[in-house]
Amino acid sequence: MTSDLSVDAVVDTARVVRQRTPLVQCITNYVSMDVAANLLNAAHASPAMVHDVNEAAEMATIASAVTVNIGTLSPPWVEGMHAAASTAHDRGIPWVLDPVAVGATAYRRETVTALLAHRPTVIRANASEILAIATSQGAGRGVDSTDDSIAIRHEAEKLAEALGSVVVVSGATDVVTDGERTVLVEGGDPRMPLISALGCAASALVAATCACAPDPWVGAVTAMAALADAGEVAGRSASGPGTLRPALLDALYLQQPDDLRKVVRR
Amino acid sequence: MTSDLSVDAVVDTARVVRQRTPLVQCITNYVSMDVAANLLNAAHASPAMVHDVNEAAEMATIASAVTVNIGTLSPPWVEGMHAAASTAHDRGIPWVLDPVAVGATAYRRETVTALLAHRPTVIRANASEILAIATSQGAGRGVDSTDDSIAIRHEAEKLAEALGSVVVVSGATDVVTDGERTVLVEGGDPRMPLISALGCAASALVAATCACAPDPWVGAVTAMAALADAGEVAGRSASGPGTLRPALLDALYLQQPDDLRKVVRR
Amino acid sequence: MTSDLSVDAVVDTARVVRQRTPLVQCITNYVSMDVAANLLNAAHASPAMVHDVNEAAEMATIASAVTVNIGTLSPPWVEGMHAAASTAHDRGIPWVLDPVAVGATAYRRETVTALLAHRPTVIRANASEILAIATSQGAGRGVDSTDDSIAIRHEAEKLAEALGSVVVVSGATDVVTDGERTVLVEGGDPRMPLISALGCAASALVAATCACAPDPWVGAVTAMAALADAGEVAGRSASGPGTLRPALLDALYLQQPDDLRKVVRR
Repeated sequence: MTSDLSVDAVVDTARVVRQRTPLVQCITNYVSMDVAANLLNAAHASPAMVHDVNEAAEMATIASAVTVNIGTLSPPWVEGMHAAASTAHDRGIPWVLDPVAVGATAYRRETVTALLAHRPTVIRANASEILAIATSQGAGRGVDSTDDSIAIRHEAEKLAEALGSVVVVSGATDVVTDGERTVLVEGGDPRMPLISALGCAASALVAATCACAPDPWVGAVTAMAALADAGEVAGRSASGPGTLRPALLDALYLQQPDDLRKVVRR
Repeated sequence: MTSDLSVDAVVDTARVVRQRTPLVQCITNYVSMDVAANLLNAAHASPAMVHDVNEAAEMATIASAVTVNIGTLSPPWVEGMHAAASTAHDRGIPWVLDPVAVGATAYRRETVTALLAHRPTVIRANASEILAIATSQGAGRGVDSTDDSIAIRHEAEKLAEALGSVVVVSGATDVVTDGERTVLVEGGDPRMPLISALGCAASALVAATCACAPDPWVGAVTAMAALADAGEVAGRSASGPGTLRPALLDALYLQQPDDLRKVVRR
Repeated sequence: MTSDLSVDAVVDTARVVRQRTPLVQCITNYVSMDVAANLLNAAHASPAMVHDVNEAAEMATIASAVTVNIGTLSPPWVEGMHAAASTAHDRGIPWVLDPVAVGATAYRRETVTALLAHRPTVIRANASEILAIATSQGAGRGVDSTDDSIAIRHEAEKLAEALGSVVVVSGATDVVTDGERTVLVEGGDPRMPLISALGCAASALVAATCACAPDPWVGAVTAMAALADAGEVAGRSASGPGTLRPALLDALYLQQPDDLRKVVRR
């Protein structure tokens, strides 16, 4: 952990989430619809899956935060993504970009490049995806990370600095950086990557916490710490990835803001 | 409970569902796809998610009932909604409208107004959504209800009378009214609103029960009573919203028609 | 079981899946998105839900296998299906067709007829759907099978021979045939059909195992045997279809390749 991080700020952010129940507009992939919505609800936030260009911008004016996830991409959805992201940017609403499998196809690379113009508050991804953006060279093989989060810490920091975004690299250890300050978040359960779209749900949770945080870096740390703690708690009772998922939702629901202290102090 | 309600009619409806396994065509939002289909299956009905205008009307001619849910709206889906709803109306097949977050955007208000022309058999929604329709003034902040179901009982009754539809207002207590007869259904578990899209799944279940009921008001009461009972049973073993969901599906599956007597008699 | 089947080949296939983590491109319906992705992850494969024509063919060149499922059909998705299936066919990548409710509407019948031109490696469906293809006469009433798998064994064998595809007829007993060789796979749990889209997830698993098998017939047997074994294990602890699903995912995750011997030897 960096000494720059105020543990109290993280705990306070978690407390504010419980008070405000931030409304997160999610333009997210079909796989993540169920788990992202349930995870937001369990974590004391509120989901709104609204993606079409007929209403995406209007919804962003009501939302506390926006998440844009390119997992199951198609042209009408990309239109809605631009509408919501640009509205969020113009109004100072935090928005999170989740560039799922950005290295896999040209369409993904082009879409992410175009979305970066709306200056995401946070980019949350795995190491391969962050590397693909950082190097603008496709390296991924789908949604799995074949690179290690800590190994690309330097690239993440440079990317954060270059874009003016907080960058979250998910992995066994999460790297959360704004270019100047970097925190490593440890915890969770090794079977968490087997819960499909849990990363997408994490992006939605980052949006929720950023809406309640003094700054997006603290917000992102709060979300990742909440998941690390809940994953650990859930892992104790789960016998596999199937039972890990409901246990994780329960753990998030029962989590107290002070539970994050031990994660952040590691 | 109103003295107009025949408890036997409710129990009989639940029994007929188990005999007929009604096929419910669901044009429903992406978040609800999984939970609505599984809930219908658990409750001894059968789901068919068929939305595209190329086949939506044809499917409605095979279906026992139709549910139309505007949660994740887009123009091609709205086309399919109209095709299915008008076919259902023309053929006397019950259809349920779930106006998710109708107060949130102009697009939702317009879509719901247009769909009402097909005269839904039942409208199932939370208090904010019913109020938004009743007053034609957007008041919601997404999919959460910020109003109380019982507090708007009068508006629900007037709306039911005006439209000739049964109106179900979901909440801690559900209000089920056809304008003349009103039943309050109590039970469930306070964590049920944290199961994302459970309301949408409830709408699909209302469609299933209406296909097997002597009239839609009895049908709607049957569905809401089944959920209230199953939610209570599930709540006893669940430690949070994550484990509540599989427990709720199990409870619906194991539920006996006579179990609804105690809910309806409250 | 046929004496043509090598039990060792099945066990080896299961072992290779664990070594290679095959990437399965899924163009699948909205209901199945969550369960198919989670089932692939639990079964040591990797899902990639990529459907749009802008990237579907490119993704197929990276994928180890492709599954095409017509559950929630619409024209833009059909375009992507053709792009992925033809690419898979041209490159010799196994692809699985899941003709959900093909008998229900004309649109489904036309779409399946057109997709057959890309010569699916495997067709996995329930008895009604296989019959609908075999007879080109719609007989289904949605996604449920009203026919028995064993009763149509002969039709399945003739269809497999005519198309040059492996045909899997799911049911209480699964029939897996390439026209010459036929295996009956028994096991599972009677509540498995109540897990929505589990058949769709099975198709995705067949794609994964075919990518790791000496031939598609062995691959399909491996997937169905894995599900039969895991369903049995899960059924012992599940109290209904709700808890059966996470238990099934856990059982697949904990399954050892040698666990398939007892299923295949029945």
